Amino acid sequence: MTPTFPADELAERLRRVRERMAAQGLDWLVVTDPANMHYVTGYDGWSFYTPQCVVVPLDGDLALLTRGMDANGARLTTTLGDDRIFGFPDEFVQQPDRHPMDWIAGVLRDRLGVRGTVGLEMDSYYFTPRAYEALKAGLSGARTTDSQQLVNWVRAVKSDRELELMRAAARIVERVLATALEAVDPGVRQCDAVAAISATGIRGTEDAGGDYTAFVPMLPTGPGTSTPHLTWSDAPFKHGEATILELAGCHRRYHCPLARTVFLGDPPSKLADTAKVTVEGLETALAAVRPGVTCEEVEGAWRRHIAAHGLEKASRIGYSVGAAYPPDWGEHTMSLRPGDRTPLQPNMTFHMIVGMWMDDWGFETSETFLVTETGAECLARFPRELAVKP
Amino acid sequence: MTPTFPADELAERLRRVRERMAAQGLDWLVVTDPANMHYVTGYDGWSFYTPQCVVVPLDGDLALLTRGMDANGARLTTTLGDDRIFGFPDEFVQQPDRHPMDWIAGVLRDRLGVRGTVGLEMDSYYFTPRAYEALKAGLSGARTTDSQQLVNWVRAVKSDRELELMRAAARIVERVLATALEAVDPGVRQCDAVAAISATGIRGTEDAGGDYTAFVPMLPTGPGTSTPHLTWSDAPFKHGEATILELAGCHRRYHCPLARTVFLGDPPSKLADTAKVTVEGLETALAAVRPGVTCEEVEGAWRRHIAAHGLEKASRIGYSVGAAYPPDWGEHTMSLRPGDRTPLQPNMTFHMIVGMWMDDWGFETSETFLVTETGAECLARFPRELAVKP
Repeated sequence: MTPTFPADELAERLRRVRERMAAQGLDWLVVTDPANMHYVTGYDGWSFYTPQCVVVPLDGDLALLTRGMDANGARLTTTLGDDRIFGFPDEFVQQPDRHPMDWIAGVLRDRLGVRGTVGLEMDSYYFTPRAYEALKAGLSGARTTDSQQLVNWVRAVKSDRELELMRAAARIVERVLATALEAVDPGVRQCDAVAAISATGIRGTEDAGGDYTAFVPMLPTGPGTSTPHLTWSDAPFKHGEATILELAGCHRRYHCPLARTVFLGDPPSKLADTAKVTVEGLETALAAVRPGVTCEEVEGAWRRHIAAHGLEKASRIGYSVGAAYPPDWGEHTMSLRPGDRTPLQPNMTFHMIVGMWMDDWGFETSETFLVTETGAECLARFPRELAVKP
Repeated sequence: MTPTFPADELAERLRRVRERMAAQGLDWLVVTDPANMHYVTGYDGWSFYTPQCVVVPLDGDLALLTRGMDANGARLTTTLGDDRIFGFPDEFVQQPDRHPMDWIAGVLRDRLGVRGTVGLEMDSYYFTPRAYEALKAGLSGARTTDSQQLVNWVRAVKSDRELELMRAAARIVERVLATALEAVDPGVRQCDAVAAISATGIRGTEDAGGDYTAFVPMLPTGPGTSTPHLTWSDAPFKHGEATILELAGCHRRYHCPLARTVFLGDPPSKLADTAKVTVEGLETALAAVRPGVTCEEVEGAWRRHIAAHGLEKASRIGYSVGAAYPPDWGEHTMSLRPGDRTPLQPNMTFHMIVGMWMDDWGFETSETFLVTETGAECLARFPRELAVKP
């Protein structure tokens, strides 16, 4: 497999990670978030269902520790030397009386010499309390501390190569949305529509194959549109109902999400009116984007616009986005909401999603945008309005 | 949406959960594993990317706590009363200075009266160390303890309704494997084959639509067959190489996994010979299955067979399987391996997977089986041998 990133890009990432480690007083960093492990090594495999990590010293070589059977996966997808890949014995998997992190902590302590102040990703998926306690007990000579979202923050500003991957994902999601709008029809089973949607996304384009997305297709329909994260069933779509489509294109783990809403029939005026104001609000917020403007200022532009039309929304309208593994394509750093005073920088990327969930109906639309020197560039091109199939 | 399970089945599940709670001395149980949340309430949504839980008192009503925008999803997919569903404010999502579990702990303590001995799922996906510390700090009047795999163990023995869903998933995976064997061909892009595979799985059958699987299709090819958990790229399959297909059918969250291996061309004798012994070993192990036999005895039958042919395998050959959410369809209870002395019982279900991963090649085959009164019933019917496409 061709490496996704050249060696100098990986080196530059590591340099930026270490800069932050030094600033936070960390001697070592234990990376457990699969997207962060991918970011610092290129490692790519569905092995995060058993404990694993990449260990980053302030100086010296990285090491990757995973289940024994997955060690070859690390050999095939990274440039780490054989002696920097450690596979734990299978007898540690899912046992009541021992834990893979017991074994991993032993290697960290005795073979890699991990000591001093060690940063842990205390809120990363797939790092459990039991894993944490085993690691802490095994690293008795070290002081552990929350690294917070150290690597996630490094990921916030994208390289040209990363943007190339996200643009490829944007081409994919345009096809995915077109497939979805064609497939959703009265009497069609939801699962049959999602089969078509998924096939288009995974096929991708001629130049860039599709990868699995960090969310499966979100497809709430009818009264389900009052909430965003329902998936599908084998019941048919109905005339006179709306369906929310929160989908994404993904290429080599890089995502371009995009949400739209479709109505089968003649939409009620409350939905049509809300859709109109929501799309305008999204466009108003996009127009507010430029370097130096803060996340909360972008959200403020949206908030003021919809308030003028008697609407409000309690939840954030977006978040930083990029490379990801299930269950989330967000990067867990910046959010477009009140209180987030992070200034935007060129080459940051966000998914701005304005979801209006009411008692028993709702509307969503979204854009994935790049912060340029002068404003926001939406990566995908697709009509934002409520789609209506009479 | 028709409820997947009748009320009396949910009541019986809860009775069995409480029986174990009493035996383990628990006054309350905080369920964070999405499959366990689904098991005790029927809740189904992709909301596990932010913290959530179901709280089970030894007596009294359950409660479900999730992100505000997902509360309607709980109203739509469970029979919990409105006053038993709590949505946390969005300002708690992904913040450095507060955590959703701060809010959740407050509700548990002040509104639900959680005290005494509280069981936590210390090794469940999506329950992080930071969430744990917030919960523990907030439940200052309670003593927390690891509930271990309490609900998972209750799930081990399936009801007739659950087996009906798994049989539907078996019909789906038969189609999925057939699609895969047809799609994998020299020059075909891996992503194009997976597009076809995924579409077949999500479409399902006329009677039972497909759901998303807890693993995406595993499709290591060429030297990648030396390791099990690589996904796909947009490179083409090559003549003269093997591809491992670890796939599943899924219906309403219930899985029937099935793995096979296909060779494009004339397979080398080492692969053909290993495949033959491996399939025989699988069949020997299946023949050893009956109620009262232990997990390690089943594995022993496999181990002795392959040892007689000069082979060995360091990792377990199977695990309990059923309802699941990403990233794993295993139930994290029983494993078919040395040291697991759990006796088999009727209506337990396992995925027996014999993967032989060598230096730069490998072979896998598997069966999902039900323990009957007299032996093992394989749920799917599909030839087990190395598939060869000359």
